Amino acid sequence: MTAKDEQLGGAERIVRSALCVGVGSLFLAFTPPASVTPEGWRVLAIFVAVITAFILRPFPMGPVVLFGVIACAATGSLDLDQALSGYGEKVVWLVVSAFLLAGAVRDSGLGRRAALMLVRKFGRSTLGVAYAQAAAELLLGPLVPSNTARGGGILAPISDSLSRALGSEPGVSSEKAGTFLTLVGAHCNLVTAAMFLTGMAANPLFATTAREVYGVAMDDWTTWALAMIVPGLVSLALLPLFLYFLVRPTITDGRPAQALAQSELERLGPWTRAEKILAFIFAGMIFLWSLKAWGPLVGIELKPDTTMVALLGVCACLIANVQPWKRMTHDAATWDTLIWLGGLLTMATALKDLGVIDAFANRANGLFDGTPMLITLIGLALVYFYSMYAFSMLTAHITAMASVFLAIALAAGAPGMLAVPLFAAFSNLCACTTNYSTGPVILYFGLGHVSAGTWFRVGFLVSLLHMAVWIPVGLLWWRLLGWW
Amino acid sequence: MTAKDEQLGGAERIVRSALCVGVGSLFLAFTPPASVTPEGWRVLAIFVAVITAFILRPFPMGPVVLFGVIACAATGSLDLDQALSGYGEKVVWLVVSAFLLAGAVRDSGLGRRAALMLVRKFGRSTLGVAYAQAAAELLLGPLVPSNTARGGGILAPISDSLSRALGSEPGVSSEKAGTFLTLVGAHCNLVTAAMFLTGMAANPLFATTAREVYGVAMDDWTTWALAMIVPGLVSLALLPLFLYFLVRPTITDGRPAQALAQSELERLGPWTRAEKILAFIFAGMIFLWSLKAWGPLVGIELKPDTTMVALLGVCACLIANVQPWKRMTHDAATWDTLIWLGGLLTMATALKDLGVIDAFANRANGLFDGTPMLITLIGLALVYFYSMYAFSMLTAHITAMASVFLAIALAAGAPGMLAVPLFAAFSNLCACTTNYSTGPVILYFGLGHVSAGTWFRVGFLVSLLHMAVWIPVGLLWWRLLGWW
Repeated sequence: MTAKDEQLGGAERIVRSALCVGVGSLFLAFTPPASVTPEGWRVLAIFVAVITAFILRPFPMGPVVLFGVIACAATGSLDLDQALSGYGEKVVWLVVSAFLLAGAVRDSGLGRRAALMLVRKFGRSTLGVAYAQAAAELLLGPLVPSNTARGGGILAPISDSLSRALGSEPGVSSEKAGTFLTLVGAHCNLVTAAMFLTGMAANPLFATTAREVYGVAMDDWTTWALAMIVPGLVSLALLPLFLYFLVRPTITDGRPAQALAQSELERLGPWTRAEKILAFIFAGMIFLWSLKAWGPLVGIELKPDTTMVALLGVCACLIANVQPWKRMTHDAATWDTLIWLGGLLTMATALKDLGVIDAFANRANGLFDGTPMLITLIGLALVYFYSMYAFSMLTAHITAMASVFLAIALAAGAPGMLAVPLFAAFSNLCACTTNYSTGPVILYFGLGHVSAGTWFRVGFLVSLLHMAVWIPVGLLWWRLLGWW
Repeated sequence: MTAKDEQLGGAERIVRSALCVGVGSLFLAFTPPASVTPEGWRVLAIFVAVITAFILRPFPMGPVVLFGVIACAATGSLDLDQALSGYGEKVVWLVVSAFLLAGAVRDSGLGRRAALMLVRKFGRSTLGVAYAQAAAELLLGPLVPSNTARGGGILAPISDSLSRALGSEPGVSSEKAGTFLTLVGAHCNLVTAAMFLTGMAANPLFATTAREVYGVAMDDWTTWALAMIVPGLVSLALLPLFLYFLVRPTITDGRPAQALAQSELERLGPWTRAEKILAFIFAGMIFLWSLKAWGPLVGIELKPDTTMVALLGVCACLIANVQPWKRMTHDAATWDTLIWLGGLLTMATALKDLGVIDAFANRANGLFDGTPMLITLIGLALVYFYSMYAFSMLTAHITAMASVFLAIALAAGAPGMLAVPLFAAFSNLCACTTNYSTGPVILYFGLGHVSAGTWFRVGFLVSLLHMAVWIPVGLLWWRLLGWW
């Protein structure tokens, strides 16, 4: 989910910037509701300008958030201390740590090796290759927090090679396997993004928003994973088959892909020291992260903090010299994410603290009286999901919509541990709708195996599958957990 | 002052790491003073291990600080929230902003052009070239906060070219001009490092320590600059002449260097758009920074925050597209500094909050009863200064020594606005002592124009000059300001 540095001409940049400032300024023309302080209203205006800038993109995401934070401080809406406080937040450092670890997975070749091993194992048929892709996403989901890095950086190039190994060339013979495998890769990426707090860079932002609006704690690794494991696995199990029927590959024998995986693995040679240590470190991290879930069953009451575990992982990588410090400090995507995530958190917190979110919730209060809660909630979730058509970035969608929709759901009386996991999942799954929704989708689409028309048509059908899976299975599972 | 990534063998790394942990653990064998909490004592032990690691360097500075911060959290000595709070501190973002701006000065070529223009103007004699170097340091001091980037990155290569233009080859004919110009470059760098809060990366760390120990506010740009302007200018005026007599160059005609500067400037061509805008942005920043000093005289009461101004400068660079975001996120030195500075601040704050610093001060209380305060203070300052012989890094020296010495000075009754500026200046000037004291010194020494013996001999004599200048002029100036 790194911001893309678009090449804009000076004039176009100025026009777009002016539009963003204009949209934000519009808000200042209105009188704020009584419960909102003037400072809160100014932060809201700046926040709206920031979201507009996410859509119009006069600048990449990092600078836009930085401008927003500085504007909050310069207008006296926030103290500078408050404005910078997001950069000391635990969730920000969870994401920073996870990005640094993802760099180690990428640089060591561990992610690539894992994917190739799965293809070698399960790739006898084209459908098997697709399930190997899904399994690779599931394996890497907890480890590589940027879905762009995971899908676009590690798995999309492998998906492309596998298609070509099956004789499928982009645009020429995509129907052989390329269209199918590309769509499997892209859509499975979004499911694993939904399944783990560290599956997508903006998930912690959603979790923090949920804690602020609802007071619900989905911001630890275990609770999130527990919420998503059942609907996520059902979703991953059905998706390749569903797509198999939608865009059936004309090649069904996967053995050339299997052979490619085999030869690539031979080229990689035996596991390196770095790969072995990394696998061990990740096993340790997942052990510690999941301790909260199974520890009490065996009498262990230790509940290590999610961020703490990730930071220990980073330290372990440094101590074992798996990833040198120099590489980490050169990892531009990490520092870009630090800037935008920290700044967005600051603004989200300020909107809550200054009464803006409560004002929205109050406005929505009573709006759905008489409608059964579940109907209202599902209706809201559907609008939240399909509003993604208007966004070109998952983070922008979450930033703009999550707090408002959660506030309305709260006002409609939806229990927190029902509404929050549902919106959390939809925050990621909604990217199935378009071919420009998030980094890996753009990258998979860019491989050229799928036409834009097909992408939109299949994307819509996949969205229906998500509804058919996540709403019943999710609701049932969260009920079984006693969450609502 | 970036940490250097040393190539260490595994065994050596392990031995050194074990030593650091061992030294820290030693502390745990002692009972803490009554006023220090067990948490505070553990933080102190970790802190001592960190400083030991700065000296033994089993890892670069960034990871060492990270290990320290995580150790504080993992041992329950600090909450993880507290442990990460340093990354939301204003001074940290002052330094981050200043580093990002320094990148723009370097990449745009503005720093190089300024230095060359000064040589062209004043370089008729070798002594004139030296004063041009001093003037370039003075000009770049407020703009380039890493003294390594300023001295080593921009000015040392120019100094080397100028020496060669005067026919001085390292080791062969250094006496012609190279020894002289190299020493002028290195020692002036340390003076300008002392003159500005943004002159050296660890100055804000010192300022924060001073605020915590003494409650004295030297952590805004204006107060620091005001404190240092008079002794700093005297120092810069005398240094080239002093060195001229110590290591008199055999070539006194500077015109070949002047001609080189002229031809280099011709090669650079007219000022680029980026250079012009940057010069304008910096003029604006210094205008805003200094507003606090002269604003009240003309009836302007606006006192913009030092960090705010620096962040506005960064935003201006982004908006004017002088330095694109991509370059900023790839600036590894910035993010390295963020990690170590934020972590050190956290630990320094914790040592104060948990009673460790006060315990030191109490222990020192009454120690100097009967000795006149000024004698005690100057004695302490001398010990602080010359203890730098034991350190290989200004930051490590400040981290290890500043809070203790300030606490003792406080106990000895020295007024804050006398002790703090004196120790602030000495924190930088003390690097004159050795050829391994800080990045630019190492780089200047590495040019090969000065033998190690000469460097130590001249360094000691320069330290005497600093004493002769900064103690009387500084004390008098701060008295004139009514600070004590």
